Amino acid sequence: MDIELLTIGTELLLGFTVDTNGAHIARALAAIGVRVVRRTSVADTPEAIRAGVAEALARTGAVLTTGGLGPTRDDVTKVVVAGLFGRPVEFAPALWEALLERYRTLGRPPSASNRTQAEVPRGAVVLPNRWGTAPGLWLEGTVDGRAGLVVMLPGVPHEMRKLLEHEVVPRLAARVEHAAGAGEQRVIRSRTVRTTAIPESTLAERVGDVEDALAPLTLAYLPGLEGVDLRVTAWHLPAAEADARLARAVALLEARAGAHAYGVDDDDLAAVVLQTARRRGVRLAVAESCTGGLVGGRLTAVAGSSDVVLGGVIAYANEVKEALLDVPAAVLAAHGAVSEATARAMAEGACRRVGAEAAVSVTGVAGPGGGSEAKPVGTVWFGIHADGETSAVRHVLPGNRFEIRARAAQMALYLLWRRLAAGRD
Amino acid sequence: MDIELLTIGTELLLGFTVDTNGAHIARALAAIGVRVVRRTSVADTPEAIRAGVAEALARTGAVLTTGGLGPTRDDVTKVVVAGLFGRPVEFAPALWEALLERYRTLGRPPSASNRTQAEVPRGAVVLPNRWGTAPGLWLEGTVDGRAGLVVMLPGVPHEMRKLLEHEVVPRLAARVEHAAGAGEQRVIRSRTVRTTAIPESTLAERVGDVEDALAPLTLAYLPGLEGVDLRVTAWHLPAAEADARLARAVALLEARAGAHAYGVDDDDLAAVVLQTARRRGVRLAVAESCTGGLVGGRLTAVAGSSDVVLGGVIAYANEVKEALLDVPAAVLAAHGAVSEATARAMAEGACRRVGAEAAVSVTGVAGPGGGSEAKPVGTVWFGIHADGETSAVRHVLPGNRFEIRARAAQMALYLLWRRLAAGRD
Repeated sequence: MDIELLTIGTELLLGFTVDTNGAHIARALAAIGVRVVRRTSVADTPEAIRAGVAEALARTGAVLTTGGLGPTRDDVTKVVVAGLFGRPVEFAPALWEALLERYRTLGRPPSASNRTQAEVPRGAVVLPNRWGTAPGLWLEGTVDGRAGLVVMLPGVPHEMRKLLEHEVVPRLAARVEHAAGAGEQRVIRSRTVRTTAIPESTLAERVGDVEDALAPLTLAYLPGLEGVDLRVTAWHLPAAEADARLARAVALLEARAGAHAYGVDDDDLAAVVLQTARRRGVRLAVAESCTGGLVGGRLTAVAGSSDVVLGGVIAYANEVKEALLDVPAAVLAAHGAVSEATARAMAEGACRRVGAEAAVSVTGVAGPGGGSEAKPVGTVWFGIHADGETSAVRHVLPGNRFEIRARAAQMALYLLWRRLAAGRD
Repeated sequence: MDIELLTIGTELLLGFTVDTNGAHIARALAAIGVRVVRRTSVADTPEAIRAGVAEALARTGAVLTTGGLGPTRDDVTKVVVAGLFGRPVEFAPALWEALLERYRTLGRPPSASNRTQAEVPRGAVVLPNRWGTAPGLWLEGTVDGRAGLVVMLPGVPHEMRKLLEHEVVPRLAARVEHAAGAGEQRVIRSRTVRTTAIPESTLAERVGDVEDALAPLTLAYLPGLEGVDLRVTAWHLPAAEADARLARAVALLEARAGAHAYGVDDDDLAAVVLQTARRRGVRLAVAESCTGGLVGGRLTAVAGSSDVVLGGVIAYANEVKEALLDVPAAVLAAHGAVSEATARAMAEGACRRVGAEAAVSVTGVAGPGGGSEAKPVGTVWFGIHADGETSAVRHVLPGNRFEIRARAAQMALYLLWRRLAAGRD
């Protein structure tokens, strides 16, 4: 079954509100095999709502709206939708009684405008709202000679979510199952392979032409500051088949991405580093210049990190690199703070001073100032000390200051992970 | 001028991605008086993109698309749009040269798939992308007998934002001014007063009943991890009147919020701390336990922070608190790591070891484990050393581990700022 989402609210068009409702609804519907084929946001005027609902019904035959059901003056959705179906809006005494009871519970009297909340299009199913005052509505009928379904939910996120879960998803799931007959329930389900430290185009070459091998699953490349996620999606397959195909696809993509694949789904690279260190009995330190604490912040964001992470030094000034990490003044004078020699000395110093078995260091030019021809903005040296050996590598990272720093923290975690994974147990 | 936004990406329909691009674009366009009349998300299939663009052009005559311009195979937008305008897609040698240069800077060779990024619809204006590899495109012409404008931007947020700011907004602003002729331009404009370390309900009591004083501006309370933002908005007022009213509103709200108001609009508390320290000639250090580097990360996120921030110590383990911050073992044994005495010793030790004039320390229980009846999850001690004096304060912060840590970093910056601001110059 296909459906469209229509979000009603001028705030969304002004950009002051980010539409998190839509993402939540899309995930909930995908889980029961209902495909969201379009999402639209319109202003809360009758004309905009009418156009949005009518177009969605003509295209897809089913639309779920959020917003425009509250007691305030922009509460126009149900009137407009009733008009499209050629139905009058009628006062529902039983609903009004329920609303009065609800206001008694809340300890405040209803206002005159609340009475409109008890008006419903003739023939609509009222979806009772135990978490707020505006009920949802489920209206089916014929619009312009075509069967249509409009589900109307309030826009307040927690009320919308509860109504979706308790009233809408069961009804839509029953419809999907009914359409499927006696067969298995079909689902839309995704898995993600997370990769890092490899550009999207290089990754695409490595992954190669896998469409045929993955079919009927689809593959999407999703680049971000932490790397490129590979998402495979099963569309309308029986649940068991979807899971089996997705597991094979994940294995295939992990094999193609090689060591750049650090996890699946919601896995965080910092947690992967901690698992690897824990398995090897290695405790960690960090030495951060241009990232200024971001690597430490990533590692300690993971609950339970304290058995592995001892701490580290934020060595932003050269004096601190000398005083707390024992970087020789001569090295800083000869090579500069952004150099292989400094990165190496920082990693070794962090291990020694903190008393850890492994450390990663980061020193670079995050910009916007401080770049030179030899060391342009984005130049970052990373040092790794582990298993008694020190290595260093240079990367030139793209983006602005924020992005360079975030990418540098991710790269530091990646390099530390690979060294720990390669080491002897 | 009216325009529609079309976000291209199956991810949005699956609900795995929240559309933050759309909100950003809507705000940027509102600021120049361009009204976003509809936002739509469609799958990245040629059929869905074609339908989305064609319908938007028929309704509104102008559409801005994001997504579908990357080097991977789901890069179909420009081909589909070219087709709608009846134009061929052509290889642009100059654009290819620029891309090659970009790849040289990044230190990696382009792959074969990158070559398609140099293909553009005939007659399109290339919007150069200095922040990534996929250029934006600006295509005007006639579709179905009606004049149409399609602006195509990549979906990667930081590239999209830069192209919007540098290439799209100036072009659209010029068009709006041209259309307005000699008349006054009306704007939709907002200002924000940022507050922190005060609960929303307490702030609301302090701000009081200001609706009448602010009218016709509207006021919204926007709580978040960094505090509560107060946003006032002018709707369709002449620019000069909007600015004057907004300035008065900001002054009124700042006066009501008192020392909790640390800035306006996009101001960051870390930058405010740095300005205050710079004015006083004070250099800063941090000593972080439960925040694990977040305070250092916040301070060094600000460009130019290196003249004020020297560095600090991430003292996650007690051994590091002793070894690098000189917290006496007896203090840790008698009071524990989360205590007033430890917070004081950490702040003093950070100043001394780093060679700074002021420092803030953070030690607390971020959870989910580690809480006790005396020190529940969320208990955080902050130490401040400045002007030769040390103070400490305890807060119990709400939320999960992520939220407690983010709130603790913000509180540390707030306490440091107030101490620096109160000190003698």
